[in-house]
Amino acid sequence: MSSTVGQVITCKAAVAWEAGKPLVIEQVEVAPPQKMEVRLKILFTSLCHTDVYFWEAKGQNPLFPRILGHEAGGIVESVGEGVTELAPGDHVLPVFTGECKECAHCKSEESNMCDLLRINTDRGVMINDGKSRFSKDGKPIYHFVGTSTFSEYTVVHVGCVAKINPLAPLDKVCVLSCGISTGFGATVNVAKPKKGSTVAVFGLGAVGLAAAEGARVSGASRIIGVDLNPNRFEQAKQFGVTEFVNPKDHNKPVQEVLAEMTNGGVDRSVECTGHIDAMISAFESVHDGWGVAVLVGVPHKDAVFKTHPTNFLNERTLKGTFFGNYKPRSDIPAVVEKYMNKDLELEKFITHHVPFSEINKAFDYMLKGESIRCIIRMEH
Amino acid sequence: MSSTVGQVITCKAAVAWEAGKPLVIEQVEVAPPQKMEVRLKILFTSLCHTDVYFWEAKGQNPLFPRILGHEAGGIVESVGEGVTELAPGDHVLPVFTGECKECAHCKSEESNMCDLLRINTDRGVMINDGKSRFSKDGKPIYHFVGTSTFSEYTVVHVGCVAKINPLAPLDKVCVLSCGISTGFGATVNVAKPKKGSTVAVFGLGAVGLAAAEGARVSGASRIIGVDLNPNRFEQAKQFGVTEFVNPKDHNKPVQEVLAEMTNGGVDRSVECTGHIDAMISAFESVHDGWGVAVLVGVPHKDAVFKTHPTNFLNERTLKGTFFGNYKPRSDIPAVVEKYMNKDLELEKFITHHVPFSEINKAFDYMLKGESIRCIIRMEH
Repeated sequence: MSSTVGQVITCKAAVAWEAGKPLVIEQVEVAPPQKMEVRLKILFTSLCHTDVYFWEAKGQNPLFPRILGHEAGGIVESVGEGVTELAPGDHVLPVFTGECKECAHCKSEESNMCDLLRINTDRGVMINDGKSRFSKDGKPIYHFVGTSTFSEYTVVHVGCVAKINPLAPLDKVCVLSCGISTGFGATVNVAKPKKGSTVAVFGLGAVGLAAAEGARVSGASRIIGVDLNPNRFEQAKQFGVTEFVNPKDHNKPVQEVLAEMTNGGVDRSVECTGHIDAMISAFESVHDGWGVAVLVGVPHKDAVFKTHPTNFLNERTLKGTFFGNYKPRSDIPAVVEKYMNKDLELEKFITHHVPFSEINKAFDYMLKGESIRCIIRMEH
Repeated sequence: MSSTVGQVITCKAAVAWEAGKPLVIEQVEVAPPQKMEVRLKILFTSLCHTDVYFWEAKGQNPLFPRILGHEAGGIVESVGEGVTELAPGDHVLPVFTGECKECAHCKSEESNMCDLLRINTDRGVMINDGKSRFSKDGKPIYHFVGTSTFSEYTVVHVGCVAKINPLAPLDKVCVLSCGISTGFGATVNVAKPKKGSTVAVFGLGAVGLAAAEGARVSGASRIIGVDLNPNRFEQAKQFGVTEFVNPKDHNKPVQEVLAEMTNGGVDRSVECTGHIDAMISAFESVHDGWGVAVLVGVPHKDAVFKTHPTNFLNERTLKGTFFGNYKPRSDIPAVVEKYMNKDLELEKFITHHVPFSEINKAFDYMLKGESIRCIIRMEH
């Protein structure tokens, strides 16, 4: 058993002291896990747009200083009271949303929106005692979505930890903590395209490319990528995207362009931008009679979805999804196995690597649109 | 073989000469069926709101003189060229929408929106030659939705005719031609509530009561009827409705009332009014994580469905349906069997009977809100 069990650990963490300013690698104290918590040693973490969004803090209440980060792979260092499913040494992925296994959502076959551990971006503390496990010089540093993986050690609720195959390379499967599972699951768990069908993906960032990967794996014969940035088209081919539409190239709504390309509409569409106009287009792009549109991208809080109700009555379906409808503990281990069985390719999502000390470079790559995923290697 | 085969038949029909004026029983000529058409002897027909709507002709282009009627049971009198699936003497239900069995919709397992024979309320003629089979004194009388069952004989495209069990009583199963199948199918084929679930039905007219019957048959434990007319509540109990909400009795949106009654939302909702506010409420009434709302009622042409997209992202589903997702020829015979096996009760929908000569009484009953279904008995 590790000599750190029950002890405060002092380690390096990248602290966001204020909105939009470079993270600073600091020595921080990480308290031991309390009831139903585990302390993880993070080995690899990756950067997701959501980290950048809350770092910029333009659209929400700023909460600083904070340790961001929510896509990661690590090893359990120690466990708190009541934790029986995990033990020190287990390989795990922390997840920004949880699964208590007790609430109506966890007991439903359909939902993954756990009442207890559903994502809460405003909370910067642990739910057990309303306090942070991170501090520096005796002053608390806020958590982020229950994970705070930009730290060598972090404390996470056991319900937010997926125990995975210890043979899985954490520098690859860490990307399954958030974006890639979100997009892939949106297609395979929610849109469920049939073999030979036509799928449109709106937005060719990491989530959209993962949605395309889901369509490829499902045997879609046509995967139409829709994006305003033509620089993304070449890269998207690796993810099975067969055709491209840039709405700027057309003087009519993109739903009409897609209808003409597909004799009436696509079989499935997956919306990964969060822009309300794209959401409406994605819905209106699906074929009447059987089309299913799936919303993934997170909209502006004041956005309003508008359409003529006849678009529904003509037998179109609109659904939304959260984290690809995966339950973190129950389902993510099997997604890792898909990678291990080569049913899902992850390498192509990983375009950059940096050591932890250069974490701010990962932000630069993402802000410039150069990276899909940048893996940040911790340096224990 | 009938002596009328290949001959013009002179018979009685209830002709709508102009909008909103009582129908007039006239002697009309009914031409023989052409290619892919059948001529039916109608024995029973019932009145549906859609007949009244097009008779009033307030919301669409008036097309008169016209023979309305689209819920009926009858017997094949003769068949036109190319018809092999039906023969004289077959018991049938004509349907206002069709199934060509050749188009992408008919070949899809999911759609019933046949490209060739999809409902067309503006067309008053047969698709084979663009002409009417009805005339009086040499002047054509328009058809209605391809059925025109307010006539002792009518001509229908073979794709709009369901061949049913000859033992089924046509005075009962005739109501399966439209409204009852529409509501029942919306629940059992589209909303698909699980046993023990909670279902809200918006609008307790014939279609809504049929939706409730679908929920009852599916084993729903709570069926909440929502209607502005409290006179409908007592009657709805026969259809399995367990609780009632009149939005006028509350000073908050009905979706909030339902959320409080159900710990967060109903499992399924079925909207049968066509009012846009009810559509939005029905969607926003379903539980996050797993709720499914189904739109059935036909909206105003200028209606706009508006909601916050987060309502979708929290894993709610919105679907529309048309004729309960039943394919007329393939599926309706099995619905008749459900009645024969006592899995579906029809008697309780039939509140009134009139002879054909008193067909205008059926309109009165409906306009006064007294009837669910009034069966009109032809008097051959």
